[in-house]
Amino acid sequence: MTKYMSTKQQNILIIGAGLCGSLLALRLGQRGYNVAIYEMRPDLRKTDISAGRSINLAFSDRGNKAMKLVNIEAKVKDLCIPMNGRMIHDKEGNTFLSNYSGREHEYINSISRGGLNALLLDEAEKHENVTIHFNKKCKSVNFENTTALFKDYLTKEEFIEDADTIIATDGAGSALRRSYYLERKFLFSFSQDYLTHGYKELTILPSETGDYKTYKSALHIWPRGDFMLIALPNLDGSFTVTLFLSYDIGEYNFNNLTTPEIVTEFFQKEFPDALKLMPNLVEDFFENPTAPLGTVKCSPWHYKGNTLLMGDSAHAIVPFYGQGMNASFEDVVEFDAVLDKHEGDWKTIFTEYEKTRKKDTDAIADLAIDNFHEMKDHIANPIFQEKRKIEMALEKEFPNEYSSKYSLVTFNEQIGYRKAMLRGRAQDKAILNMLTDGIISPSGDIKNILDKVKTETEAILEDDKIAGLH
Amino acid sequence: MTKYMSTKQQNILIIGAGLCGSLLALRLGQRGYNVAIYEMRPDLRKTDISAGRSINLAFSDRGNKAMKLVNIEAKVKDLCIPMNGRMIHDKEGNTFLSNYSGREHEYINSISRGGLNALLLDEAEKHENVTIHFNKKCKSVNFENTTALFKDYLTKEEFIEDADTIIATDGAGSALRRSYYLERKFLFSFSQDYLTHGYKELTILPSETGDYKTYKSALHIWPRGDFMLIALPNLDGSFTVTLFLSYDIGEYNFNNLTTPEIVTEFFQKEFPDALKLMPNLVEDFFENPTAPLGTVKCSPWHYKGNTLLMGDSAHAIVPFYGQGMNASFEDVVEFDAVLDKHEGDWKTIFTEYEKTRKKDTDAIADLAIDNFHEMKDHIANPIFQEKRKIEMALEKEFPNEYSSKYSLVTFNEQIGYRKAMLRGRAQDKAILNMLTDGIISPSGDIKNILDKVKTETEAILEDDKIAGLH
Repeated sequence: MTKYMSTKQQNILIIGAGLCGSLLALRLGQRGYNVAIYEMRPDLRKTDISAGRSINLAFSDRGNKAMKLVNIEAKVKDLCIPMNGRMIHDKEGNTFLSNYSGREHEYINSISRGGLNALLLDEAEKHENVTIHFNKKCKSVNFENTTALFKDYLTKEEFIEDADTIIATDGAGSALRRSYYLERKFLFSFSQDYLTHGYKELTILPSETGDYKTYKSALHIWPRGDFMLIALPNLDGSFTVTLFLSYDIGEYNFNNLTTPEIVTEFFQKEFPDALKLMPNLVEDFFENPTAPLGTVKCSPWHYKGNTLLMGDSAHAIVPFYGQGMNASFEDVVEFDAVLDKHEGDWKTIFTEYEKTRKKDTDAIADLAIDNFHEMKDHIANPIFQEKRKIEMALEKEFPNEYSSKYSLVTFNEQIGYRKAMLRGRAQDKAILNMLTDGIISPSGDIKNILDKVKTETEAILEDDKIAGLH
Repeated sequence: MTKYMSTKQQNILIIGAGLCGSLLALRLGQRGYNVAIYEMRPDLRKTDISAGRSINLAFSDRGNKAMKLVNIEAKVKDLCIPMNGRMIHDKEGNTFLSNYSGREHEYINSISRGGLNALLLDEAEKHENVTIHFNKKCKSVNFENTTALFKDYLTKEEFIEDADTIIATDGAGSALRRSYYLERKFLFSFSQDYLTHGYKELTILPSETGDYKTYKSALHIWPRGDFMLIALPNLDGSFTVTLFLSYDIGEYNFNNLTTPEIVTEFFQKEFPDALKLMPNLVEDFFENPTAPLGTVKCSPWHYKGNTLLMGDSAHAIVPFYGQGMNASFEDVVEFDAVLDKHEGDWKTIFTEYEKTRKKDTDAIADLAIDNFHEMKDHIANPIFQEKRKIEMALEKEFPNEYSSKYSLVTFNEQIGYRKAMLRGRAQDKAILNMLTDGIISPSGDIKNILDKVKTETEAILEDDKIAGLH
């Protein structure tokens, strides 16, 4: 059998050269496959991205695991701005910093989407067996014949590409997923769920001297119960600010914020300290689009050994856990591990990959929605603040024995999202209930608290298991 | 203001004359609206339904609440065959009856879908302000203009109907819901989720003397862990039998049951006592289609005051709680109550209806999937049998103080599905955990058990509430 060798001459077509697609191309290129990526946008490395318009993302340990896999950890580190915690801003402009972890070496990073994508494309292109084609939009995929129909945005011509296997990393609006749904050739479970809130990106520009106008090393949050503002730093001294707000509910909402006066009034009332840093608010507000926040889940991700969905095309999530990019990068790590076991047999690879991976991407989707409520609401809620205080103390005193839900999800990349979710939720439930019942308090003996939290967490997990709840 | 009076002259177009649509037409006819229903199938009252091919459904208290509303409770009762419990069949052909409730007056009914639908159509047509149009398929709905495009199956012509408001009761494949999804004019959350199992309908024909070949007053179940067979009685002495089985997993599955020999072998091995009653098995098996089991959820159900989804078009569920028809009938009761409050203002009616109703239809969708696992698996599981024994005793001894999850869902029509789900799941968790921990046992003092179950249930509900879990 020369199965293994012939595999290496196989042609893989990747749809979409975003973060997931370009990482996947790099990894498959390293493994020796012939890889062609088709991307609908122009080459972002040749397009000007003006200061203040750069979009950033949270980059953390699961994403970094993938960077290690493809040997570019050091290069990515140069693009990162560490954020040690959340800087919480109240209505009076008072701030306090809430660390992400009681362990000093655990923090997340702000990273430029464009900068990271450009690096991944550069690295992928170093492999002569990898080619990247821009301005070519996938219109549909024939998943029986393993061909994809593209339109060239420059020549306006349509053409069909053939491959041994097609992997779609074309995001939440995936053409392959749409083909799965519309063609009804097999039972395709699918969901799109929108939050009642949308988001709009704004900017805090650098000062005249090019410095950061507010504290650089944190993710800033202005939680207001029903809505919130956040800000992440960029390398150029600016911050990308995002307003999360209901479309139509509440005194102020996206549907009624229609004039410069009312937008300014809203910020003056709710985010006065942010408004001072944003003389460009009104301009940004009316120039930038309001976008929806949706979760996409589906199954199966693959059809035979012909086609596969990966990254956001398989599992788009809301941004509140800062895990969207990290989850897509982890997809590539998991896929690579399955390749090690079954290389040469795409059908088995795809089946096995979905089987091991989907439970975890379902979990991070649900966790991200939990965190929507936690960020806009719970952060400012006294009992959640007491819980947070206790967890910080536990992580500091017992760094090898305790990790909060946030730490399990964000910094424990050796644990899957689902396991992190089940344990993290049980811990939260244990602490919140014991606080409410006066069994523990932030001023209590910390070793005693650790023992009680551990015991109660195990009891909750066991009770749920007996009741068949997971 | 003559708002209320003018309302009565309004034209309501209902798409689909199935169980929900014909009940809705009857009720709106009783209220004085001008109602036109369009149905794609021929008039089922003029089509022969041969013996043994009739399909039946479980009819219970929530459905009956709607029959009371429209004053046809007595007529419906004549169509009903009471089923007091589940008759469970093991592999050796041994049977035991497990009642649905410890209260004698609580039972469910087997009812003919066609018979009930015909009655509802007859009753609706008695109102001269109600017209029913058959053989007219809705192809799409223009929800901005409140018009619907139909194709007449007899003349092959297409035509457009205008109305003051359009209500779609056109089932899981709803044309209105498809228009909502495809036109992307607003954020439409939508999910379709298929089980790994499909189903196929079979028959136990009456004996030569026209009698029932097995016990009439029960829902028969042959639970086998990964799959199951069920049977419900019909008025003509036959039973409609349904096989629930994986499409592709397990030694026997729908994909490999391809010859008469293997189908017979499967039944001989797994359902020998049923096979004896089904000489017609092979014929039925290869004549009848295999159909998928899906759950549909979506939101919003309405667009402005123009259009509304109701019944399966808004919330299709799997059949394992016997609540599909009952939930759709309850929709009409809930809608009627909202009409009482806001008659004349369709937008408010639709908004308020979805707000009060959706949490409950989401709950019954999830409960129905729980029961899929319970029916095929838990019924034959010792700890679940002990739980069932305790609950029967509690319901018998304390009929006014205790209702199992099944009773809350099925016989407590004054409680919404969501409340029934939360309390029912908490009770199940309490009992299963106390049984496992040896705190209660089926031989214990029943008053003591009641107190412990109540206390533990309240504690579970309170703990979940504090943890923000509902």
